[in-house]
Amino acid sequence: MTEPLKIGIAGLGTVGAGVVKLLAEHGRLLSLHGGRRLKLVAVSARSRTKKRDIDLSGVRWEKDPLALATAPDIDVVVELIGGSGGIAKRLAERALRNGKHVVMANKALLAMHGAELAALAEKRGAILAFEAAVAGGIPIIKALREGLTANRIEWIAGIVNGTTNFILSEMREKRIDFQAALADAQRLGYAEADPTFDIAGIDAAHKATIVSAIAFGVPVQFAKAHVEGIVDLQAVDIAYAEQLGYRIKLLAITKRRAANSTHPGGIELRVHPTLVPSRRLIANVEGAMNAVMVQGDAVGTTLYYGKGAGAEPTASAVIADLVDIARLATADPDHRVPHLAFQPAAMQDLGVLPIDDVVTAFYLRLQVADETGVLARITGILAEHGISIDALLQRPNAAGAGEARTDVIILTHDTVEGRMRAAIAKMQALPTVLAKIVRIRKEDLA
Amino acid sequence: MTEPLKIGIAGLGTVGAGVVKLLAEHGRLLSLHGGRRLKLVAVSARSRTKKRDIDLSGVRWEKDPLALATAPDIDVVVELIGGSGGIAKRLAERALRNGKHVVMANKALLAMHGAELAALAEKRGAILAFEAAVAGGIPIIKALREGLTANRIEWIAGIVNGTTNFILSEMREKRIDFQAALADAQRLGYAEADPTFDIAGIDAAHKATIVSAIAFGVPVQFAKAHVEGIVDLQAVDIAYAEQLGYRIKLLAITKRRAANSTHPGGIELRVHPTLVPSRRLIANVEGAMNAVMVQGDAVGTTLYYGKGAGAEPTASAVIADLVDIARLATADPDHRVPHLAFQPAAMQDLGVLPIDDVVTAFYLRLQVADETGVLARITGILAEHGISIDALLQRPNAAGAGEARTDVIILTHDTVEGRMRAAIAKMQALPTVLAKIVRIRKEDLA
Repeated sequence: MTEPLKIGIAGLGTVGAGVVKLLAEHGRLLSLHGGRRLKLVAVSARSRTKKRDIDLSGVRWEKDPLALATAPDIDVVVELIGGSGGIAKRLAERALRNGKHVVMANKALLAMHGAELAALAEKRGAILAFEAAVAGGIPIIKALREGLTANRIEWIAGIVNGTTNFILSEMREKRIDFQAALADAQRLGYAEADPTFDIAGIDAAHKATIVSAIAFGVPVQFAKAHVEGIVDLQAVDIAYAEQLGYRIKLLAITKRRAANSTHPGGIELRVHPTLVPSRRLIANVEGAMNAVMVQGDAVGTTLYYGKGAGAEPTASAVIADLVDIARLATADPDHRVPHLAFQPAAMQDLGVLPIDDVVTAFYLRLQVADETGVLARITGILAEHGISIDALLQRPNAAGAGEARTDVIILTHDTVEGRMRAAIAKMQALPTVLAKIVRIRKEDLA
Repeated sequence: MTEPLKIGIAGLGTVGAGVVKLLAEHGRLLSLHGGRRLKLVAVSARSRTKKRDIDLSGVRWEKDPLALATAPDIDVVVELIGGSGGIAKRLAERALRNGKHVVMANKALLAMHGAELAALAEKRGAILAFEAAVAGGIPIIKALREGLTANRIEWIAGIVNGTTNFILSEMREKRIDFQAALADAQRLGYAEADPTFDIAGIDAAHKATIVSAIAFGVPVQFAKAHVEGIVDLQAVDIAYAEQLGYRIKLLAITKRRAANSTHPGGIELRVHPTLVPSRRLIANVEGAMNAVMVQGDAVGTTLYYGKGAGAEPTASAVIADLVDIARLATADPDHRVPHLAFQPAAMQDLGVLPIDDVVTAFYLRLQVADETGVLARITGILAEHGISIDALLQRPNAAGAGEARTDVIILTHDTVEGRMRAAIAKMQALPTVLAKIVRIRKEDLA
């Protein structure tokens, strides 16, 4: 096979331009790896006149990106338009329907419609590849679909959003509050002008949804993910956590949980700020870096670390997919890696557990009146709900509210979330609890 | 394709038994991933009567492992005998010559004869797979050959030997010397009765040789590796390094170096104790765990972490290779991943630089007479050799040799090793330098 793999790219933003550049720079290297040339045939983007610093001579410009999906001289469509529907979705669908392979970095689209797209790809004998959709340049999709294929995956916990990890690092290192750290991130280009998708945890949840499907062979089901962002996180809790030997990270978590006497079985799928023991490698992932921990029954804990965003790291992942396709496109579709890791007929619909059935430990911070018996009442309520205490700190109130007020910080052992919710409601109702109780989940990741 | 992939295993030690067990336990899961069944057809091992706690009913026992290489009912031979030659080599060669695929965890054999074996495999259209040969359960070979294929790899630095990393962790945490830590490691089963291969760095060098070939497309050339173990490492240097913000790790390093005015270009291939900044993730990899850092020009720094040894992690890697083969064995050989990452015709023979041409920074410890002018003479010699100083510590002699003797600890900037060797020889000759100068290389890994 000396025929080059013919590529059409839709979307020439940072990543699209990065892919064009890397394809040109490493043309020879890529042929050496893939056994044939990767040839950029056509591109499409909103503005033809925008300054991009890429060489598009000899490359066809399509005004309508959908034209890439039907062009007879294109083997693979690279969808880098973005968005969970609209033109990106129509382009991917039309390309797959025409038997063209599709490479995308679009986590939103995959988290919402990944199962349909994968099914369409199977049906048409086309390849749908999306290494760049999770954790940028880190080959985590390949590790899950291929490298760890001998394992029953038990859980995955990842820092998969660089913006929020940068903000959390800033908050801890500089002891500043969320708003100040967000402003830093925006000034330095780590956060967008409208940072909602990142700071609300939605972007991380898209990625959690994708790895959950691949790890457990369950449907792609973003709607069932439990998502909390970092907007309400306070510097004081980061400091207390540190005193207790923990760091707070926004983790994307998906876990397989067997049924037992206290709770039903199913898949946990959740994104939220999480206390992690400081000695874990993942607790020491700072700035905009990403890292994903995977627990397999044979291999134990593995971790994958690198840049989760940016033109070049993302282009690295997109092009790895293209080289895979250059190799595999001519092979029998039955012998390709299944898009969602499992043969389609073998997918199972393990339900996603509602957050009340999720099991974690908790960090609690209560501002209480400095009176005799307060601690007894609080610990009594936890005991009533069957929640046992791992550690307890009492400190002068961090807000400086004087001697009348004390901070009580509690680390619990694992408990079902519904119980904790009930216990918090009861504690909150105590007249001696003087402010909203802070509760952050805690994972040992061992 | 519903025909199962038929497997013969040679060698039923810890790993072999682990593979048999995992194949049985995850039979269904593996079919779901690979699209067809992995069927163990025959095994061979030295002792048939040894207690192994595995079920071999229905599996043929071959007295002679070489019979697996010719048996018409076997598609893949898994070579888990070990050793850089002898029966393991003959088995792999005969199997490949007969067009059978070969999976091995045998880093010694690959480091010595990997290029010949890969060439033989290409010639016969067979697959040679060896994920388990480097860093056990961590899918690092796959990351290099496939996941990072869009990158020009700049360097790789890995903790790839669990025994030595365990010993170094013990030395640091318990402030004990090498011999005591080795005894701990042997008692706990982390080191063998004869630990030479591990503590002398040979095992790590085998692995460095393999990843070097894959990363740079150069021949497999173990004989050119520079290898130093941890036998001479002293607890006092670990403690001083820590005071300066570094940890000491046995790193397997391979690096591409461009020629410039002071030194020739080529590949660096070396294993030695190395100071690494404490804030790097890899500096915090403790105990018997492995981790490999890879620097690619597009993706930047990535890191892969996990268990580097043990029955189950190694079996996880062996079986990942088997699932890959189950998928790819029927595809056109031209569209498989090249064994050594690059198409065979594209291998280049970049020379391995002699250690004198290697560039690193250095940690030096000198025991000097506590006299006026000593420091001036030492720093003068370094300056004469064009070596600049990054940091300098002066401390009372750690061995308690009294006020007449001082420890001088120097961190240098990057320099060509040959210069440092010359400078050390000159310093060592000073009458005021009272003991053998300790020198440990230092890498920033940024």
